[in-house]
Amino acid sequence: MTLEPFLDQTRQRLETELQQSFQTSASPELKQAIHYSLLDGGKRLRPALVRAASELVGAPQDSWLIPAQALEMIHVYSLIHDDLPAMDDDNLRRGRPTCHRQFDEATAILAGDALQAEAFSIIAEAPQLNDRQARQMMQILAQRSGSAGMVGGQMIDLASEHKRLTLAELSHLHQLKTGALIDAALQLGAHCQTDVSEPIRQSLAEYARALGLAFQITDDILDVTGTTEVLGKPSGSDQQAEKSTYVQLLGLDGAREQARDQIDRAHAALSTLKQDKQDLLWQLADYVITRDH
Amino acid sequence: MTLEPFLDQTRQRLETELQQSFQTSASPELKQAIHYSLLDGGKRLRPALVRAASELVGAPQDSWLIPAQALEMIHVYSLIHDDLPAMDDDNLRRGRPTCHRQFDEATAILAGDALQAEAFSIIAEAPQLNDRQARQMMQILAQRSGSAGMVGGQMIDLASEHKRLTLAELSHLHQLKTGALIDAALQLGAHCQTDVSEPIRQSLAEYARALGLAFQITDDILDVTGTTEVLGKPSGSDQQAEKSTYVQLLGLDGAREQARDQIDRAHAALSTLKQDKQDLLWQLADYVITRDH
Repeated sequence: MTLEPFLDQTRQRLETELQQSFQTSASPELKQAIHYSLLDGGKRLRPALVRAASELVGAPQDSWLIPAQALEMIHVYSLIHDDLPAMDDDNLRRGRPTCHRQFDEATAILAGDALQAEAFSIIAEAPQLNDRQARQMMQILAQRSGSAGMVGGQMIDLASEHKRLTLAELSHLHQLKTGALIDAALQLGAHCQTDVSEPIRQSLAEYARALGLAFQITDDILDVTGTTEVLGKPSGSDQQAEKSTYVQLLGLDGAREQARDQIDRAHAALSTLKQDKQDLLWQLADYVITRDH
Repeated sequence: MTLEPFLDQTRQRLETELQQSFQTSASPELKQAIHYSLLDGGKRLRPALVRAASELVGAPQDSWLIPAQALEMIHVYSLIHDDLPAMDDDNLRRGRPTCHRQFDEATAILAGDALQAEAFSIIAEAPQLNDRQARQMMQILAQRSGSAGMVGGQMIDLASEHKRLTLAELSHLHQLKTGALIDAALQLGAHCQTDVSEPIRQSLAEYARALGLAFQITDDILDVTGTTEVLGKPSGSDQQAEKSTYVQLLGLDGAREQARDQIDRAHAALSTLKQDKQDLLWQLADYVITRDH
């Protein structure tokens, strides 16, 4: 399959499932706020990575849907909390008011909290996963999203505002803040198959590491070169927040070169798995640095 | 064992373990804020319930420690988020500044988020739990803490401020907001043993339901009769926030009677399990309505 129909179909399948979520929520207001943020037409890159990795390891068809939903819930909770006034204080996300702007801050905090819990719930309850798979998937989610992963990275990011970071510090920050969930996507996909070898998981981890960096470098580039309209969020926001970025440290051309270099590494990791440019993970790597938002 | 040494020993064992937590946190500032809230000398009622239930079902010694830590992490995350300015806006918790007062709001939001993730992580990684147990424990935690449980209850609570609730509405709210985690405590304790029968779990659920209500009614009573010094938080805060309470709906004597009635129900549930007043869960029920903070 070529990339575009793959991404479209992944989005559609995922969103059909996500629309069925939170049926047992005790509060209609909470469900409304959660669905507002969860079903807002994101790129669904992480779910696409879960699916592509699950296909690479030969997992049963559709087995990617549960972990992909869980991971997207974690991702969306982190966006809702990151947008809060006490954090990045963003008013716009994907062209619409952020959750706390559309509803209120308390609702946004609770929507994020509920999404995190549901990510684990949906895996724990999935009848198609055996106990070992479910446990491993929850372990991956918890480790990559917690204080040693995404949340730890966000804390470092906040502490680094108005500071000039070195390239090594910046990469460390983004390996946690963005890279940890991208790594989770690949590992979750691999665990859709019950007996994936350690070398395959290692290669997917290498791919994820390079892809995560390329993704963040491209984000930094788009923040400078993109328009608010196409990005769906204010361009130039990094500079305004005095955040260290790859563009600031390497210049625009240097950042582009660095991103390209990381994609070469991602492709090299796939080559060890006998993948080539026909394969979806290969194409997804190219997509990550050529996207316009 | 009598209740007091049991509670003391549970607290000590638990806190020794909790002090070892978050060793892999990516950010020392985050770990500091988490430990500030996690190790602040709470009553540790939920861990005591996990332990007492695990002993009732004859689970291996010390098997309560992992789920008790996980549950306490969920409880503490909810306190940190509930205290935020956008939520209850509390400055004082257990006699000390709340997390966002001691640090800042962003740190408090992230500390709560990281605690939730770690609750799942600690269970997923525990070598002493088999896959089935770990999965079931995570399922209990996720369901009871999420939108159909604690977070759903908190959302209803916020939507109910300045409204006069009926007794049924108030009970529903607290069954979710407070009761869900108390139920989780008993169920987690039961799952420390691998083959607990459904009737035992049912009786523990009945006990939990009555105990949760008695706990909340007592909280409402203490908010009126207690002093800020003993409570460690401002007394009279419910009235100030115009929250519906059992005292407001039933009067002080009526509320006390209702709490006593619930404890009778809790004891009745234990009687079906051949427990009597020598047993810890029996004593814990009495403790819940006789405590002074």
